[in-house]
Amino acid sequence: MPIRTRLTERLHLRHPILLAPMALVSGGRLASAVSAAGGLGMIGGGYGDAEWLAREFAAAGNQRIGCGFITWSLAKQPHLLDIALDHKPAAVMLSFGDPAPFAARVRQAGIPLICQVQTLAHAREALAAGADIIVAQGGEAGGHGATRGTFALVPAVIDLVQGESPGTLVLAAGGVADGRGLAAALMLGADGVLVGTRFYASAESLAVPEVQQSIVDSAGDDTLRTSVFDIARKMDWPDPFTIRAVKNGFTAEWHGREAALMQTQPAEAERYQQAVASRDMSVAGVFAGEGADMIRDIAPAGALIDRMAVEAETLLRRGAELVE
Amino acid sequence: MPIRTRLTERLHLRHPILLAPMALVSGGRLASAVSAAGGLGMIGGGYGDAEWLAREFAAAGNQRIGCGFITWSLAKQPHLLDIALDHKPAAVMLSFGDPAPFAARVRQAGIPLICQVQTLAHAREALAAGADIIVAQGGEAGGHGATRGTFALVPAVIDLVQGESPGTLVLAAGGVADGRGLAAALMLGADGVLVGTRFYASAESLAVPEVQQSIVDSAGDDTLRTSVFDIARKMDWPDPFTIRAVKNGFTAEWHGREAALMQTQPAEAERYQQAVASRDMSVAGVFAGEGADMIRDIAPAGALIDRMAVEAETLLRRGAELVE
Repeated sequence: MPIRTRLTERLHLRHPILLAPMALVSGGRLASAVSAAGGLGMIGGGYGDAEWLAREFAAAGNQRIGCGFITWSLAKQPHLLDIALDHKPAAVMLSFGDPAPFAARVRQAGIPLICQVQTLAHAREALAAGADIIVAQGGEAGGHGATRGTFALVPAVIDLVQGESPGTLVLAAGGVADGRGLAAALMLGADGVLVGTRFYASAESLAVPEVQQSIVDSAGDDTLRTSVFDIARKMDWPDPFTIRAVKNGFTAEWHGREAALMQTQPAEAERYQQAVASRDMSVAGVFAGEGADMIRDIAPAGALIDRMAVEAETLLRRGAELVE
Repeated sequence: MPIRTRLTERLHLRHPILLAPMALVSGGRLASAVSAAGGLGMIGGGYGDAEWLAREFAAAGNQRIGCGFITWSLAKQPHLLDIALDHKPAAVMLSFGDPAPFAARVRQAGIPLICQVQTLAHAREALAAGADIIVAQGGEAGGHGATRGTFALVPAVIDLVQGESPGTLVLAAGGVADGRGLAAALMLGADGVLVGTRFYASAESLAVPEVQQSIVDSAGDDTLRTSVFDIARKMDWPDPFTIRAVKNGFTAEWHGREAALMQTQPAEAERYQQAVASRDMSVAGVFAGEGADMIRDIAPAGALIDRMAVEAETLLRRGAELVE
C-alpha cells in the first residue's frame, strides 16, 4: 500500500513527494511526469519570464501541477503570479524572501500556499503569511538555500508549527534523494518531502546532458555553498542565501575571493555566459545537493517516484519489526 | 519492546544510543548513567590528561563504559590510549584525524574501535583502519565537526560501507536530540545514534549550570560554526574542523575576523580564560548543536535515554501504520 499522510490527503496525491520548482530545470514535462506518477510536479517560475511560464504550463498538458517562484524576484514582476494563478495550479510555492506580499492573492484564489523556509525565523514569517504547507529546507539542498541542516531543522519547524498552527503541514527538503530520505523525513514528523537534485538528473529535466552527467558523477563531498555563481550571473541574491554547487575550476578560482570577483564582474560574467553556452563544466555551475552520492543514474521521473515510494514503504514496514 | 539493531547486539545494549565522549563534559558519572539506562556511555578523553582520565574512569564505578579521544591530540600523548585500554573499555572512539596510528592497538586489545567521520573521504580512512563502527557526524553537531549535513551524509557513508565492509556498523550523529532523530537515523539505514548536546544539558554532565541553561534557552538558529573559540583557547585544530557554538558577544566581535584575532591572541586568550572562570557567557563559548531547539530541560541522563527510546519505538510502530 502507498504511504498515506496529511499531504497525500490534502493535495490528493498517491505519494507524499513534491518536485522542487527548480528554475530553468523543472519545466512542464518534468512537472507533469512527477504528477502522473502520483507526486506533485511544480514548474520553476524562477526569475520570471512570462513566455517561459506560458510555454511550460502548456507543456504540462492536462496534468495537475503547481508552480513555484523566487519570492524576492517575483516582487519585481508581480504580474507573473497572475499568469500562474490563471492556470489554476495545484499549489503555488514561494521561496527565498518574505511571502507576505503575495500570500493573500494565492489564498484568495483558493490555491494552497507552500512556503519554503531555511530557519525558524523564516518559518515564523511563513506562518504569519498563512502558509498551508511549509517546506523546511536544509543546507544539504542543491541550488539556493542556507546553512541549517535538514536533520534538526525539520523537527524544530514542526514543533513551532504544532504550537502555533497545527493544521499547517511541514515537508522536509535538502538531501532527500531516495526512499530512505522519505522514510526518515516521516520519522522526523514531516508530512512528506520536496525533492530537487534527484529530478535534476531525470529524463524529463530541462538540464543539459553535461549537467546531468556531472550530478551522476559527483559526490556530496564535492559540493560547497558559494555565491560566486550568482556574482557571475549578475544576480543580486539577498542574505543568507547561497548556491550549493559542485566544486569546479570557477569555484577554485573565486570562492573565498568574492570581493575580487565583484571587481572583475563584467569580464567574468561574459566568460561565465560563454561557458554555459559551450557547456564548459570547468566554469559553468552544476547546482547539486549533498544527496548527489545517492544519484547514480538518469532515469524517468516516474520511475524515480516509484523507486522512492517503494523503498520508503518497505523501510517503514521493516522499522516496526525492529521493535517486535 | 526495545529497538533491536546490529548495534544493540554487537555491544550488548538495551538501546542503540551512544553518548558522545565530549571533552570535559562526558565524565564518569554521565557515562555510567547512560550505560545504566541501557545505552553506552563514553568518557571524553579529549585533549588528554592522565589524571582526569583515571578520575573519570573511577567515577564510572563498575559500569561498563567506553572512552573517546581527539585523534590528532592523542598523537601528542599516545600513552593515554594505554591508560584507557588498561580499563578494558567497552569501546574506544577516535574522532578528528586519521585513526590509522592507533587502530591496531585498540583492535589487538580486543576492544571495538569506533571512528567518527565527517566526509566520505574520512569514512574511507576509517575503513582502512579497520573500524568496527563508523559514526557519520553531520555539521549540525555541537562542538567540533565539519559541514556536511547528517541527512545525506549518513546514507552515503552506509552505501560506501555496504560496498566495502558490510560488517562495519554505521551510526548517525549531529542533530539527534530526541526519539524522532533516532527513528529517522534508523530509516536512513543507521544501526543507531551517537548523541552529544542533549546530554550536555543532563543532570550528570560536567558542564557548569550556566552553560547548561544557555543550551536550554538557545535555538538552532542561534548557533554557528566558528574557529574563534579554538583561537581563544590557543588550540591549533586542523582543517576542516570548526566548533558549532551559540552565538555570543565573542563571536559577534571576532567571527569572520580570525586573522585579526590571531594577532591579538595572547590578550584575547587571557580574556577568554577569565570569562570561562567567571562564567561570563557573553564571551565564554557554549558548544551546542542545531538540535538545541529540541532541548527544553535539564534532566537525568537515564530519563533522557528512556524518553528517546520510547518515542522512537512509538514512531517506528506508527510508521508501519502509514502503509497499512
